[in-house]
Amino acid sequence: MELYGERGFEQTTVAEIAERAGLTERTFFRYFADKREVLFGGSDEIKAVLVGAVADASASATPLEAVAAGLTALGAVMEERRGVEFARRRQRIIASNDELHERELIKLAGWSSALAGALHERGVDDSTASLAGEVGIAVFRAAFQRWIGEASGRRFEDVVAAAFGDLEGLGAPSAPSKSRQAAR
Amino acid sequence: MELYGERGFEQTTVAEIAERAGLTERTFFRYFADKREVLFGGSDEIKAVLVGAVADASASATPLEAVAAGLTALGAVMEERRGVEFARRRQRIIASNDELHERELIKLAGWSSALAGALHERGVDDSTASLAGEVGIAVFRAAFQRWIGEASGRRFEDVVAAAFGDLEGLGAPSAPSKSRQAAR
Repeated sequence: MELYGERGFEQTTVAEIAERAGLTERTFFRYFADKREVLFGGSDEIKAVLVGAVADASASATPLEAVAAGLTALGAVMEERRGVEFARRRQRIIASNDELHERELIKLAGWSSALAGALHERGVDDSTASLAGEVGIAVFRAAFQRWIGEASGRRFEDVVAAAFGDLEGLGAPSAPSKSRQAAR
Repeated sequence: MELYGERGFEQTTVAEIAERAGLTERTFFRYFADKREVLFGGSDEIKAVLVGAVADASASATPLEAVAAGLTALGAVMEERRGVEFARRRQRIIASNDELHERELIKLAGWSSALAGALHERGVDDSTASLAGEVGIAVFRAAFQRWIGEASGRRFEDVVAAAFGDLEGLGAPSAPSKSRQAAR
């Protein structure tokens, strides 16, 4: 990770990463399928955390409350495993490389579908589940930017909770006629 | 477009596309930078439509009402220019090709930033503007899937308006303490 930051992702070889980590190349590849895995490893595991927490949310939870439970559980994993400094460095690397940026977006689209699927399992209709999954990832993305951008040291789950709280203040058009009117 | 559907995007050559359209290859390249442009051409123009409509929304519009105005204007362009049948075919092609899917996600991330930027110009603080931009694209994605998936022939702007109306029913956790509780 440090090396990606110092030299750029493309210029860093597996040999260099392995050397910095005190590993042989061979050992490196036993842990990571390729050098992108350092940035994207564990994504499927995180998907499972999201889905599990949505499934375990209380029966009375609304779709977005269940999604919030998923993102809270995800936040706990992010905090415990690697923390905000890792997230900051990772984000800088991803922002500097189109291919990594694309892979990040694909990953998030997969999480959105996973959330929608987990909501569907709770009996939420497909159309509502998809919308809630998309909104969940929208909140995640906005919260993630706030989290890595602020010096306050708030925990990720608190930033997520605040972002969900902010949704109401965005003033969603409540009726079709109203939103069409706003366009005129 | 027809050819992409019949043969797959990768297997279709520019020569074949040009022939079907009654153009020489040379003329084709005068209109489209490459064959992906057939699918992604006009994306910057659409970004300008979004930004313009957000800027023109009434002064009293909430952030999401302004975003809804942007998506309504975008919907009008989509309906007038190419319609739902084009959108359906395009989506099938994009779903079948990873590279195109990535480019689609990059495009949408760009729209989200454009919406946030336009809101910022209206005096909305950055953090709120980013959240509203992300939520706007979340609604767009969910509405788009509904629009191309249903046979009812509703106009895109009506589907968007309905999706915005559905946001409230998703039951956003209203206070940090509540969303944390839902996770337990």
